[in-house]
Amino acid sequence: MGKIRVGIVGYGNIGKGVEIALSKASDMELTAVFTRRNPESVVVQSENVMVCKYDDAPAMMDKIDVMILCGGSATDLPEQTPFMAKYFTVVDSFDNHGKIPEHFAAVDKEAKAGGNVALISAGWDPGMFSISRVYGDAILPNGETYTFWGPGISQGHSDAIRRVEGVLDARQYTVPIEESVQKVCNGENPELTTRDKHKRVCYVVAKEGADQEAIKKQIVEMPNYFEPYDTEVNFISMEELKEKHSAMPHGGRVLRSGTTGKNDEHVHVVEYSLKLASNPEFTGSILVAAARAAWKAKQKGMAGCITMLDVSPADLSAHDGEFLRKNYL
Amino acid sequence: MGKIRVGIVGYGNIGKGVEIALSKASDMELTAVFTRRNPESVVVQSENVMVCKYDDAPAMMDKIDVMILCGGSATDLPEQTPFMAKYFTVVDSFDNHGKIPEHFAAVDKEAKAGGNVALISAGWDPGMFSISRVYGDAILPNGETYTFWGPGISQGHSDAIRRVEGVLDARQYTVPIEESVQKVCNGENPELTTRDKHKRVCYVVAKEGADQEAIKKQIVEMPNYFEPYDTEVNFISMEELKEKHSAMPHGGRVLRSGTTGKNDEHVHVVEYSLKLASNPEFTGSILVAAARAAWKAKQKGMAGCITMLDVSPADLSAHDGEFLRKNYL
Repeated sequence: MGKIRVGIVGYGNIGKGVEIALSKASDMELTAVFTRRNPESVVVQSENVMVCKYDDAPAMMDKIDVMILCGGSATDLPEQTPFMAKYFTVVDSFDNHGKIPEHFAAVDKEAKAGGNVALISAGWDPGMFSISRVYGDAILPNGETYTFWGPGISQGHSDAIRRVEGVLDARQYTVPIEESVQKVCNGENPELTTRDKHKRVCYVVAKEGADQEAIKKQIVEMPNYFEPYDTEVNFISMEELKEKHSAMPHGGRVLRSGTTGKNDEHVHVVEYSLKLASNPEFTGSILVAAARAAWKAKQKGMAGCITMLDVSPADLSAHDGEFLRKNYL
Repeated sequence: MGKIRVGIVGYGNIGKGVEIALSKASDMELTAVFTRRNPESVVVQSENVMVCKYDDAPAMMDKIDVMILCGGSATDLPEQTPFMAKYFTVVDSFDNHGKIPEHFAAVDKEAKAGGNVALISAGWDPGMFSISRVYGDAILPNGETYTFWGPGISQGHSDAIRRVEGVLDARQYTVPIEESVQKVCNGENPELTTRDKHKRVCYVVAKEGADQEAIKKQIVEMPNYFEPYDTEVNFISMEELKEKHSAMPHGGRVLRSGTTGKNDEHVHVVEYSLKLASNPEFTGSILVAAARAAWKAKQKGMAGCITMLDVSPADLSAHDGEFLRKNYL
């Protein structure tokens, strides 16, 4: 059996993360990158990879087994995933939690029309964290689930700061409140407000002569983004920002605390945690495993939209059942 | 649709844990307990539950949807799981890692002959820990997996001490070496020997007048069980043993440390950890979720042996796909 031939749509941070992950997957190969930019302006790292126009993708149906969509969730994926699902088995990391049912329905329709499998929202949250939430609830139905994000860079919050007048550049770290995490780990089952769970730490480069107090006030009072949190604002130089804050670390944890026993006297705590040196490369790694699972589902004759919740651990693996039972079970 | 009707085979610690877990599962009900003891000698906690003879189980095929086997892995399950799989959809927590392929083959044969689904080795290790090992390997193929057990009581090691001459009773705690765990958490990817990973802490009640030094020597030098580890032996009174060491806590963690990046410069650490107040009740909770998954597989027309690695998170859940996507994804 040949390798699974993969196409990447969108060659940004996540697309590059997928490319790196494919280089470690012995059963898969990168065939082509699709872009809406001028293909000649896109230089990929891997050898023997075509760079093609986005619109030319449908003509490549016989050359690509799975298309991995690496665009943004705001405007790219709502359009691109349904479009590509007509022609290909597809995977995306759509992460706008509130709009997942809508995206699912749109993708499902096109995937079924095309007789393809589409696996959406395959990242770490949604994705691996969702899996942990479902396992926790299934095993300990009498309990509570807590999700903490960070410490890590939030792209959306960093962008929001950059739009404040007088700001040249910025990075925002989402930081879990350690005391709250500890209460959950101890099985105390606390009630936690938004402010109890996370704080926001900002590193801001102000334009020369800008009013730092005014910038700070605008940030900490920004509705939804910062107002519900305790927010720390630090002004630093562009040099320091580039030197200390240009990596893309992230992570977090899902905790399930639940009880068993005749009188619920036994408290159990289940934790799934991630410490990621590169958010887009880890997301890319999940997308590649998900692409394998989507391809297997297609081989079984499935069609339509699924998520990581519908996929077994074995389906994500390059190894067969016998090997997994012998070495991992 | 009615509730899934469950039978429990073997009413020991795990059987009682399953009974408690079923009381929290709104889509399932306990119908009967099967025992090789005199049924009249077995008093179950739940109401409206039959207590039946083990040998009478086959006559109950129309009353039980899933049979949960709660016997021991040494002699009970190798006989009972294949036997029951002829007649019922079955689940067990067979935990003798080395003999899983053999058990799988024996169960698979009978399950296929009976047209039933059998889900074996559904506990936390094997089980949830196996799932974490497979996820870790699938997502970060360039990495290393570490499993630490404890702190918690090991039944097998406690039994081994009780067989030493002069010992009245004993409990053995398996304790992970915290420095080694930290090295893994830090992404240092250490090479760890058996002794580096766990130590063994024993609480022993000696018979009056017994030679404590001789007992200690016999314990710490016991091949396989204690010799490869640093072992601590504490002599205590029967009162203290009963007061402080009669609970059945356990737990542990699976860590996957792996790299991405052009030069493997990004280290990611994924951790799944459990802190369990009652080992048998948590195992019982997993068995109940697994019974639901086995029943769903049977409804889909499957037959044969599977493991937790072949089951999706959604299959373990009492909720439907739409609910899970909206609330857990």
